[in-house]
Amino acid sequence: MQKQVEQYGVFQIEVQGKTEGNPYLEYEVAGTFTHGEESRTVKGFYDGEGRYIVRFMPEVPGKYTFRIFGSCMEDITEGSFDVHPAAKDNHGPVKAVGEHLFYTDGTPYYSIGTTCYVYPQQTEQLQEETLRTLENSAINKIRFCVFPKHYDYNYRNPVSFPYEGTAVDNAGINKSNFDEYTPETEGNNWDFARFNPEYFRNLERNIEALCRLGIEADIILMHPYDRWGFSKMPAWANDLYLRYVTARFAAYRNVWWSLANEYDFCRFKTVADWEHYARLVVENDPYGHLRSIHNGYILYDFSRPWVTHCSIQRQAADISISNISNWRKQYHKPVVIDEMCYEGNIEQDWGNISAEEMLCRMWTVVMEGGYPGHGECYDLENVWWSHGGTLHGESWKRFGFLYDVWTECGHLKKDRTCWCSNDTDTVRLYYGGEHRPDCKTLHLDGNWSAEVLDTWNMTREYMGDYTGFCRIPLPGREYMALLLKRKD
Amino acid sequence: MQKQVEQYGVFQIEVQGKTEGNPYLEYEVAGTFTHGEESRTVKGFYDGEGRYIVRFMPEVPGKYTFRIFGSCMEDITEGSFDVHPAAKDNHGPVKAVGEHLFYTDGTPYYSIGTTCYVYPQQTEQLQEETLRTLENSAINKIRFCVFPKHYDYNYRNPVSFPYEGTAVDNAGINKSNFDEYTPETEGNNWDFARFNPEYFRNLERNIEALCRLGIEADIILMHPYDRWGFSKMPAWANDLYLRYVTARFAAYRNVWWSLANEYDFCRFKTVADWEHYARLVVENDPYGHLRSIHNGYILYDFSRPWVTHCSIQRQAADISISNISNWRKQYHKPVVIDEMCYEGNIEQDWGNISAEEMLCRMWTVVMEGGYPGHGECYDLENVWWSHGGTLHGESWKRFGFLYDVWTECGHLKKDRTCWCSNDTDTVRLYYGGEHRPDCKTLHLDGNWSAEVLDTWNMTREYMGDYTGFCRIPLPGREYMALLLKRKD
Repeated sequence: MQKQVEQYGVFQIEVQGKTEGNPYLEYEVAGTFTHGEESRTVKGFYDGEGRYIVRFMPEVPGKYTFRIFGSCMEDITEGSFDVHPAAKDNHGPVKAVGEHLFYTDGTPYYSIGTTCYVYPQQTEQLQEETLRTLENSAINKIRFCVFPKHYDYNYRNPVSFPYEGTAVDNAGINKSNFDEYTPETEGNNWDFARFNPEYFRNLERNIEALCRLGIEADIILMHPYDRWGFSKMPAWANDLYLRYVTARFAAYRNVWWSLANEYDFCRFKTVADWEHYARLVVENDPYGHLRSIHNGYILYDFSRPWVTHCSIQRQAADISISNISNWRKQYHKPVVIDEMCYEGNIEQDWGNISAEEMLCRMWTVVMEGGYPGHGECYDLENVWWSHGGTLHGESWKRFGFLYDVWTECGHLKKDRTCWCSNDTDTVRLYYGGEHRPDCKTLHLDGNWSAEVLDTWNMTREYMGDYTGFCRIPLPGREYMALLLKRKD
Repeated sequence: MQKQVEQYGVFQIEVQGKTEGNPYLEYEVAGTFTHGEESRTVKGFYDGEGRYIVRFMPEVPGKYTFRIFGSCMEDITEGSFDVHPAAKDNHGPVKAVGEHLFYTDGTPYYSIGTTCYVYPQQTEQLQEETLRTLENSAINKIRFCVFPKHYDYNYRNPVSFPYEGTAVDNAGINKSNFDEYTPETEGNNWDFARFNPEYFRNLERNIEALCRLGIEADIILMHPYDRWGFSKMPAWANDLYLRYVTARFAAYRNVWWSLANEYDFCRFKTVADWEHYARLVVENDPYGHLRSIHNGYILYDFSRPWVTHCSIQRQAADISISNISNWRKQYHKPVVIDEMCYEGNIEQDWGNISAEEMLCRMWTVVMEGGYPGHGECYDLENVWWSHGGTLHGESWKRFGFLYDVWTECGHLKKDRTCWCSNDTDTVRLYYGGEHRPDCKTLHLDGNWSAEVLDTWNMTREYMGDYTGFCRIPLPGREYMALLLKRKD
C-alpha cells in the first residue's frame, strides 16, 4: 500500500471482493478520505478477477486517513498515508476562471491542443510512438476517445474492445459501404454489463503517461463514428459506462471530460440525454474536472451551468474563430477551439490545410483570447488526427515559439482587429496573419519596446523603443507579429 | 451633326442657348427621340459657354427623328439620324436577370472588377497609364468616384474641381491631422450652383475610353472621404448634382450607378436621403442602368425595388463571402463583391493581402455565384486602388485564366462546400482555395471529362474521363480546381 503520495497525485487502493454474479452491476465499493476536519467519499470500480479499486486525488498536503467499504466485501479496510506538496511541475488540475484557464495552484495554463482520436486503441508500439512525438513537441493537451472509432481512414478494428463479447467481422468495410457515421451494427455481440478491464487499464496507462509529460487528457466520452454499437447502447448501459469511467479516471489530475465529439451527429442521443450524462459526470467526479461538449454544426448551449468551457469545432462562416470574443462575452467561459481544420492533404476539406494556414489559425485563436487545437491528416497508413504516431507536418514545429510568446504575454484579449493585450495592459500584440503591412502607425501612451516576430521562421527582432506618435516598420510579409512591451 | 450612330452608342446634339443668369439653375433643355411609334424624352444639360447638350442612347436600330427644346432657347431644333446594329463587341448595357448579370443582347456578363477610386482626378498622363493597364488586363469593370477623395494616401488635390470656386489650401494635410473621414471644410469657397464642365468632360472621356475597352464604369456618386465639402452640400445642391450627372452620363452604355461608397460612413446623409437620391437617379436615367449602394459595416437593404444588384464590401466574419449563396436567396439579385481586401503591403489590413489570397477570394466569389472585385495597394506614390497607374502585383495577371474558365462554365451556383455547377448541370467545378486535397472521390451520373486546373500557375491538365464511383487524383496543393464537363 502507498504510504506517500504527491499532492494532486493518485492514491490507489485495491481490495479483494466478491466475484459471484456480475460484480460490475451487483456490488459497490467506495472510500472515505479524511484530512483534518475534512472528509470526502469517492466511488471505486471493479477491475476484474475480484479486484476492487478506489482512487483518490488528495488536493492538500498532510496526513490522510481512509476507510474502504462497500457491498463488494464484508470487511472494511482502513489506513493512512502522507501527502507531500506538489513538485515543481505539478500545478494540479486545470480550472476555468472567468474566460481563462489556470492550473489549480494559480499558474496560467496556455493550451496548445492536438487531436489523436483513437491513438490509445492502436498497437502498444504506436501508442509509445505517439507519446514520444508529444514529448518532443510543445503540445500540452490531447483529445482522444474512450470508444473505438469507425470513420474514413479508420476501418481497422481496435486492438481490444471495452466490453466482453465479439465484434462483427469488418472485412471489406470502407467508406464506399457506408454513407452514415453509424452503419448497421448487427452481428456484434457485446455484454454491456461486463467491461473489459484491460481496455480501460490501457487508457489509464496513457492518461498517466500524458500526465508525466504535462499534457492534459481531453477525454471524449461518446461519439457517433461507430459500427460496433457503442453509440447506441441502452440507457442503463450508458449510465453504467459513465459511472465506470468517472470512477476509474477522475483521480488523474490531467483529465478533462468531453461529453461528446460532434454531439449533434449522435443520432441516438437527445439534448435531454446529454444533460442527463452531464449530471452523472458532475455527480461522480469529486474533483470538478473541466467539462464540455463539442459540436458538429450546432453549438451546444454553453451557458448550461455544468459546462466549464466552450469546446468548439469551427465551421466556416457561421462558426468562425473571429467569433471568439463574442463567445467569451456571451458565456463568460474559456473558449477552446478544438478543431478548425487540420494540416494535411487528405480529400476532406477539414483535413487538408497547409502548415502555414494551420499555424495562422493557432495564432489567431490565441490573439482572440481562445485556446487553439491542432491536428494533422497526411494520407498515410497512420493519420495523426486518429492514430497518432509521428507528426509529418510543419506547423507543430512552430508551436513552441507561439507558446513562449504567449506565456511571456499572459492571457490575452482582443482589442480591435489584429491587436490584443494582456490583462495588465503591459503587452500589446499585433498578429497580421494573412495581412502584410509594411508598418504600423501608433499613438503610444508611455514608453514601449517593440519586437517584430516572424511566427513562421521563429525569429524575433528588436526594433527599438517607441513612444507617442510613431511608425514602426514591418517587413510586409504574411504571418508577422509585432510585440510591444511597456517599459515604465 | 451625327447622321449615323451605333445601337447602344451615344447620339449627341449641341445647341446654343441663353447665358444670362445661371444656366445650370434657370434653364432646361430636353430632347424627344422617335423611332417608329416609340418616343422617348430625355433631359439634357448645360456644358458652359452657351452650349446645351442632349445625349441619347438608341436601343434599337433604324431611323430616328428628334426634337430638341427647352427654356434655354426660343427655337426648336429638329432632325434625324440612322442607327445601325451593334458591332460584334457591343452587347449593350449590363442588366440584372435573376441572380446573374447579362448584357442587353443576352450575352452573359462575367464581371472581373477593380477599383481606382479617383483615377480620373489624376493627371492626364496617369489617366492614360491607367487605361493602358486596364487594356492589357482581363478587368472588365472599374469603380471610381465623381468627387475627389480625401483619405489616407490621398492628400494631394485633384487636378480640377467639379464646381466653380476655390479649395482650401491643403498644405500639410495628412492622416495625422485628421481622425475622421470628413474634417472641417472651412476655407473652401464653392458655388454649388455652377459646375465646372471641364471636370465632367474629363470624366466622360474616361467613360468613353472604358467603353471602347469593353469595361463597365461603376460610378460612385457620393462618398464620405472629403475635405472640400462635397459630402455635405445643401439638399438642393445634391439634387442639382444628381440631375446633372445623370443627364450627362446616362447615355453611355457602360455606366452603372453606385449611389455611394461606404454609405454608412457618410455622416451627413440619412437612409431617407439615399432613398431620395435613388428616386432621382431612377427618374433621370431613361435606360435603367444598374443601381446599387456599397456598405462600410452595414449592408443597405438590397430588397429595395430600385436596387438592381447587391454591392458589398466584405467585412470579416459578419459580412463574409461565404454568405453569397444566402444573399442570392434573400434578394434574388446578382451579388457583386466590390471589396474584399486588396492585394498589397500597406499598413491598413484592408489593403495588404497577398496576390495568392486576392486571387483565391476572386475564385471563391465566382464559385459562390457572385461577381468579384479586385484592388491593389502597394505603398508607392500612386496606389492603384485610388490613383490607378500601373499594376505592380501578381493577382491581376491570373484574371484572364479565371475569366476563361468562367465563360467556359457559364454562370455558376454553389452546390455544397467548394463545389458549384452551371445552370444546365453540364459543368461541375471544385475549387479548393486554401484546401489541398490529394484526390476527390465522386459518384458521377453519366460520363464526364476531368481537368485539373492550377489557378495560380494557370495550367490545365486533362485527367481522363470518369463515370460512376471514381477517385480523381489531385496534386495536394493550394489553389487547385477540378473541372468536370458532362460528355453525354
